Amino acid sequence: MDRSALPETAFLAPDGANRAAVEALFAQASNLLLDLAGGAAARPPLRLDGRFVDAEIPQRPRPEGEILGGLRELLEDAMNPAHPGYIGHMDSLPSTFSVIGAMAAAAANNNLLSLEMSPSLSRLEVALMRQLAKLFGLPAGAGGVMASGGSLANLLALGVARNRAFDVAESGLCGQSAAPLLFASEAAHGSLQKAAMVLGLGRAAVVAVKSPRDRLCPRALAVAIAAARDDGKAPFAVVATAGTTVTGAIDPLAEIAAVAGEAGLWLHVDAAYGGALIFSRRERHRLAGIDLADSVTFNPQKWLYVAKSCALCLFRRRDDLEQGFRSPQPYMADAGGFTNLGELGPQGTRSAEVLKLWLTLQHFGHSGIAALVEGGQDLAARFRDGLARRPTVEICDAGDSNLVCFRPRDAADSVVASLQAELLRRGFFLSQPPYRGRRWLRIVALNPYCAAAEVAAFFAALDASL
Amino acid sequence: MDRSALPETAFLAPDGANRAAVEALFAQASNLLLDLAGGAAARPPLRLDGRFVDAEIPQRPRPEGEILGGLRELLEDAMNPAHPGYIGHMDSLPSTFSVIGAMAAAAANNNLLSLEMSPSLSRLEVALMRQLAKLFGLPAGAGGVMASGGSLANLLALGVARNRAFDVAESGLCGQSAAPLLFASEAAHGSLQKAAMVLGLGRAAVVAVKSPRDRLCPRALAVAIAAARDDGKAPFAVVATAGTTVTGAIDPLAEIAAVAGEAGLWLHVDAAYGGALIFSRRERHRLAGIDLADSVTFNPQKWLYVAKSCALCLFRRRDDLEQGFRSPQPYMADAGGFTNLGELGPQGTRSAEVLKLWLTLQHFGHSGIAALVEGGQDLAARFRDGLARRPTVEICDAGDSNLVCFRPRDAADSVVASLQAELLRRGFFLSQPPYRGRRWLRIVALNPYCAAAEVAAFFAALDASL
Repeated sequence: MDRSALPETAFLAPDGANRAAVEALFAQASNLLLDLAGGAAARPPLRLDGRFVDAEIPQRPRPEGEILGGLRELLEDAMNPAHPGYIGHMDSLPSTFSVIGAMAAAAANNNLLSLEMSPSLSRLEVALMRQLAKLFGLPAGAGGVMASGGSLANLLALGVARNRAFDVAESGLCGQSAAPLLFASEAAHGSLQKAAMVLGLGRAAVVAVKSPRDRLCPRALAVAIAAARDDGKAPFAVVATAGTTVTGAIDPLAEIAAVAGEAGLWLHVDAAYGGALIFSRRERHRLAGIDLADSVTFNPQKWLYVAKSCALCLFRRRDDLEQGFRSPQPYMADAGGFTNLGELGPQGTRSAEVLKLWLTLQHFGHSGIAALVEGGQDLAARFRDGLARRPTVEICDAGDSNLVCFRPRDAADSVVASLQAELLRRGFFLSQPPYRGRRWLRIVALNPYCAAAEVAAFFAALDASL
Repeated sequence: MDRSALPETAFLAPDGANRAAVEALFAQASNLLLDLAGGAAARPPLRLDGRFVDAEIPQRPRPEGEILGGLRELLEDAMNPAHPGYIGHMDSLPSTFSVIGAMAAAAANNNLLSLEMSPSLSRLEVALMRQLAKLFGLPAGAGGVMASGGSLANLLALGVARNRAFDVAESGLCGQSAAPLLFASEAAHGSLQKAAMVLGLGRAAVVAVKSPRDRLCPRALAVAIAAARDDGKAPFAVVATAGTTVTGAIDPLAEIAAVAGEAGLWLHVDAAYGGALIFSRRERHRLAGIDLADSVTFNPQKWLYVAKSCALCLFRRRDDLEQGFRSPQPYMADAGGFTNLGELGPQGTRSAEVLKLWLTLQHFGHSGIAALVEGGQDLAARFRDGLARRPTVEICDAGDSNLVCFRPRDAADSVVASLQAELLRRGFFLSQPPYRGRRWLRIVALNPYCAAAEVAAFFAALDASL
């Protein structure tokens, strides 16, 4: 092929001929990223005055310096989760080795679609999913697959549960007389409604069960299942949540497992956020019962600090996944007993996101992750204590994980919004989720660079803003 | 938070305190990747003797040198698409700037879920999708969203088409009396069956229409639609393919658009592969009619050399996407008229895959991409010519794009498999898709480092192996 119309550094030549030039470009880019991340404390956690984004595709190659300048502008105007005052979302600053993993996955550009297109990396994914299944207490025969985000992991679990319950993979849901229903807490994640919509069940198929303090009530669940059956509906799954989006609540998993088991329903645990607690001996009791799940969603892209996307779905019986979802791709060579991973999830082509996870686990070890998770819990406790000492604020807090919500007592939503903006001006980025009819300020206490000094500064800022 | 249980380089400190150490680690990792990519020609394109993969999670942090050693082993045993003899799959070696983009997206770790979590990057995605929609000839009001892989892009398009035709987002498909059907060529991608399964339509909802030489026959399509209606079924969509997986065939898009329009059906064009031709003035005529589509899948992760995953779905009327798929995530702050992108696709959390695409487009320009695409077409022509001069091989070739399949005449499948293995031993990696009942060897001619010398060497290897 004639490459003369392309910049010299378009690709790295397989004989290394242009290696020096590509290396220099990598070094420039790497420096830019190190400058930005290493200077994160000097930029606000969120800028509201972002520049205009020009997406015009140039006719001819643009000079590299110009391109990197454009990249710098985009990143300066991006959210800045590395700022010590960033306590707004479940999206943390990334682990160093997950950035390396992202670069490695892109450079290797293997495809987890098939074993032939990613021999070592497909095997790594299968083996690592088994390890994680073991960590969650799932029995031999358990395993799973990665997915680009928790919404897809939940979609996969519910797809398997649906196909297993109604045998509709081939013929579809039309003509199904009884409407399939799944049950979850009122505080369960919106991706369940999305999954139900995508799966052809309809958003209304998600029954929101009464959940005092955001925890699914097992008795109310049993009643709701029985009532649905009396009503001619077809319950097929229960979704328990370990770490709700707004208050971080964890459902009573063991009790819910008992109800689901009694009713013969699939139990999916959405531990996208809270699953990280399993790494801490001190904290894992909060997940007691997760080993009874039929499937588990877990997002290392949240509390495990792995650069996104990095999510996965584990199955108690990996065979359920094979039998309940496998979509043969006839154009792929068979892989001698190894099911090509592209047949097992909603995606086909996937990059080696497993590398980011594997590298981070190697670098942190169990002990390092435990320290981070426990540190997050302790940090949340500090915020809770400080808030509890301020009678003018109202706290809404499950106490299960490192999320704390509050608002000025009896304030209008507009006051909450102004308070968020004022705190942002003072260097603290909190999110403001609508929740049970009102707007709250939410602290997600997972920033490893948010320590005692930052907590003190936060309360000074809060007191000055209230 | 107490970070003493963690390695010093676990994160890059936001005040740059440990920058030197992280920079050194990045340099080591970057060198490793440059060594591997710059030495790709010296490693086989695919190794069949991969080492055992150990996925054990260590109790304590592992030394960084050891971790990088493990990464090196994994990548040495990975598929090697940068080898000049790699002509096996649509997965190319990555553009330099897409590797930089992957690193940048991971380092920034923004979330395309919401505007607040990725202000500049969400805007970039929307703006770039508009530019691409324009390039494909879609009218004002067109736009789209990125998805992690073409399977998800096809799923999204068909989900929108389904919801629009049957209004089932809320209530689901149960009770739908007439079975929804979609029509595609016999050679259409397996992700359509998967999407139909996921969407609750069932795999059987995909009607494979007669497709001489892998091109969907418009007359047969019209007949199939009419017959299905007579049979009480509910046709709702036609999927045309621009670049089939095995022979690279492109359906007659304009004629199919006429049939779909006449029948009042949604027209989706799966241009995951062939969409790249739009960048070449010489080649784009092959896509004539794509501007009539209601939706288009396009995967820059294939013929645009962007590191995976990088795929997208464009909509003629972006409103169809908003109205047909939007799943409000109530916990997110509203974004003042900007629909948070996490509400518009099957994914929620997404990384800024748009950066890889944007950077590559800036670096290559229209002209560079055109040169690559035309180079691929010319390379395929060379292979075709050489094969045509060998009477002992049978060619199966649509001639529309840069895929060429062949097999030894009257050979058993096992002979084809042996030939593949022999060519691999000689440094050429071809895939061996099953196709119309037999096994073929497939050349995907997109390797920018496969030139006249490699083609000559390939034919020498082939002649020695036949």
